[in-house]
Amino acid sequence: MSSEKIKFNDTFLFGKSGVSPSRLESLSERLDICREWLLELHEKMELSFLNLPFEKNALSDLQKLVDTIDFSIKDVVVLGIGGSSLGPKAIYSALKPPYYDLNDKVRRVHFPDNIDPASFKALLDYLDPDRTLFLVITKSGGTAETATQFMIVWDYLNSHFDKKQAIEHLIAVTDPEKGSLRALVNEYGLKNCSIPQNVGGRFSVFSPVGLLPTVLAQLDAGQLLAGAGDMASSFRQGDVNHMALRAAGLFYLLHMEKKCPVHVLMPYSDAFYDTALWFNQLWGESLGKRKNLQGEDIFVGPTPVAARGATDQHSQLQLFVEGPKDKIITFLEVSDPGNDLEIPRVFGDYDSYSYLAGHTMGELLKTELAATSLALNKAERPNCSLILEKVDAYNLGQLFMFYQIATAVSGKLYNINPFNQPGVEQGKQYTYGAFGRPGFETEGKVMNKFKTGFATDSAKK
Amino acid sequence: MSSEKIKFNDTFLFGKSGVSPSRLESLSERLDICREWLLELHEKMELSFLNLPFEKNALSDLQKLVDTIDFSIKDVVVLGIGGSSLGPKAIYSALKPPYYDLNDKVRRVHFPDNIDPASFKALLDYLDPDRTLFLVITKSGGTAETATQFMIVWDYLNSHFDKKQAIEHLIAVTDPEKGSLRALVNEYGLKNCSIPQNVGGRFSVFSPVGLLPTVLAQLDAGQLLAGAGDMASSFRQGDVNHMALRAAGLFYLLHMEKKCPVHVLMPYSDAFYDTALWFNQLWGESLGKRKNLQGEDIFVGPTPVAARGATDQHSQLQLFVEGPKDKIITFLEVSDPGNDLEIPRVFGDYDSYSYLAGHTMGELLKTELAATSLALNKAERPNCSLILEKVDAYNLGQLFMFYQIATAVSGKLYNINPFNQPGVEQGKQYTYGAFGRPGFETEGKVMNKFKTGFATDSAKK
Repeated sequence: MSSEKIKFNDTFLFGKSGVSPSRLESLSERLDICREWLLELHEKMELSFLNLPFEKNALSDLQKLVDTIDFSIKDVVVLGIGGSSLGPKAIYSALKPPYYDLNDKVRRVHFPDNIDPASFKALLDYLDPDRTLFLVITKSGGTAETATQFMIVWDYLNSHFDKKQAIEHLIAVTDPEKGSLRALVNEYGLKNCSIPQNVGGRFSVFSPVGLLPTVLAQLDAGQLLAGAGDMASSFRQGDVNHMALRAAGLFYLLHMEKKCPVHVLMPYSDAFYDTALWFNQLWGESLGKRKNLQGEDIFVGPTPVAARGATDQHSQLQLFVEGPKDKIITFLEVSDPGNDLEIPRVFGDYDSYSYLAGHTMGELLKTELAATSLALNKAERPNCSLILEKVDAYNLGQLFMFYQIATAVSGKLYNINPFNQPGVEQGKQYTYGAFGRPGFETEGKVMNKFKTGFATDSAKK
Repeated sequence: MSSEKIKFNDTFLFGKSGVSPSRLESLSERLDICREWLLELHEKMELSFLNLPFEKNALSDLQKLVDTIDFSIKDVVVLGIGGSSLGPKAIYSALKPPYYDLNDKVRRVHFPDNIDPASFKALLDYLDPDRTLFLVITKSGGTAETATQFMIVWDYLNSHFDKKQAIEHLIAVTDPEKGSLRALVNEYGLKNCSIPQNVGGRFSVFSPVGLLPTVLAQLDAGQLLAGAGDMASSFRQGDVNHMALRAAGLFYLLHMEKKCPVHVLMPYSDAFYDTALWFNQLWGESLGKRKNLQGEDIFVGPTPVAARGATDQHSQLQLFVEGPKDKIITFLEVSDPGNDLEIPRVFGDYDSYSYLAGHTMGELLKTELAATSLALNKAERPNCSLILEKVDAYNLGQLFMFYQIATAVSGKLYNINPFNQPGVEQGKQYTYGAFGRPGFETEGKVMNKFKTGFATDSAKK
């Protein structure tokens, strides 16, 4: 039977500055509508993120593809940005042992996730082309940053190899039919796999976008999907009390009725910091919208903030405890830290050391989480915990699916479309214009005027 | 003559959703008072961050200390958290070449900056004790997380070496007189250096806290101080139009009068992402305060958010452009990216590739910054740019000093004390109580009750 292994402790979302249980109760009907809506979208196959964990042969197909690589892979480089990089990067950094990349004997996966030429050149200089596999991941096929990375890598490979050999070092991950990358796949006969058409970038972690790098990193993609599948099933089979619905409802009420637009995700675990960055995209890009579904201006959306415990107790916590009462804090707690370290009985004469002796580092970390939660509650700051048994693929799969469901449901509550991102188009068009792409001459003129004015303004200061 | 090399372009902080020039003008008098106040605090030696770049012999003293290390150092580990780690980590990640740590022939500096036992154990397992130097950095001398790291490392060293050898692998950085670490230095004769008493954690990057790791990382600490010194001098010699005062004034007006409590720092450079995390502490912990200077509850403080360009154009930007008009975005622009990469003339038949050919990756990055700035302005979102000539120690020194001055001044504008952090005490006391530290029995009881209740609540779900 499917179930959630991760737990959601929402005690401190209620109370003095929080939601009243009756207010949540009165949201039940809307939450039920959200649930039906999401399931229906999946039935009509307009969406498929809930279905991805159940794709037959998904992993075996990827494994077959990987088995066609005829050289010994030392480094894998993911060319991609945003939704094509944040998911697999979060998986890699959560599930590989800490400091894994310091060992230069192991297979490393790199996520440049940017177009910083200094970084990208340093990465190319480091790589051994004979033993490097590049993944080019872009749903649309023409993302400017990914296209740039790919063009430079194409040149790099063709300067090291003949044409036939060069393409052996590439796998394209893109739309099954549309876009320039699919066309390039066809022209050059590139190895490739497809991102299902009803899966958007930030909901693609269980598609080949997330799974191919995971398989190449020799991590347990099967358990990742098992965790995700169990969460998806419990949502399908459950009711309005499902943790993802309940969380979405509570976060929504805290935002709209208790004026908490800032949403902090604070894992008490180094492994999950990149998961918080993945969440930033999911939550921010899905829910930050100008228009509601009726086309009216509403300028809505919570602001996600990434933090890390215990580190940020010595950085952002002061603001969370004493600043404006505009934040919800979600802790990620790991019940079993795996390797723990005993704090030895040394410095017994020193008050600020001796009380620590005999405890473990993991105990201190968990105690600090509890203490921080309690202190925030005392200061009337709503906070809650997602409790994971341990850092493993199964739990991470559950967490990803939990947040994807909660995000989609939140979109319905906010009455916006959580699956588009119209706000980023204007900037892209200005860039096209500045680079002389046909069809964007107007934007090019605006940019030209702007850059000239900018230079003059800067010079004045 | 001293000057600022970095530029502040604030054009887009004015205009429709921004500040009116006359409103900034009318703040001049207050800004002048802030300036006088800050200089006076330095004159009275209650503060010294402005003076740190001019400390005679600061670097030569540190170099002498480093020269006493009688083994060949392969790894340096900074034991510390928050203000004892964020500054030197930002320096290291900005100034070392990208992907530097992948090379296992070089000297690496590690900043665990947490008490995650899985990470910390992996780090210890990786290290070669014979060639590792540990820095223990804590101003108070008794920070729980640093104490824990230190106790475990003390045990680790004493299990590998005899007593005399063990302490050769340690340098303590702490208060010149007070605190448990200073007492341990005296008891065991540890190598050490001092953090001046009038320097707080988040304003300590130009003290040995930031400089000792920088010297050990073989980076140009002299140029870092030169940049900082020039910024400090231009502030001393300048007037209310100094860029740090002007920025503080504009940010304050945008927050309090234009309802923009969220403050995004978005470097378009991988090198400066950790600088944005350093800024998060500086801005958030300094300005997030419950009480004003009259002791009244005001619950004030902007929320800093770290982002990275171009990456976050595919993550957080949608929210920044279309979500609530509650954000100020500051870009960090690097004029000369150093190594650049030409985008080759390939895939000429594909519209979404061909327009990129012949440009460079660095050009695309800068164009996207300009395009994003323009798009945000069009959407009536105030934004500005700090323009650095290049990624080097001098420019980074200027940037750090700029933000320290702007933060202190902002504290004065908000009428709060920017140099304390009373809000984090409660959580610490709960932890002491749970760990049975004498004097915290009441907090221990509260924690006990809480943890029992917590467990019961969790089990119910």
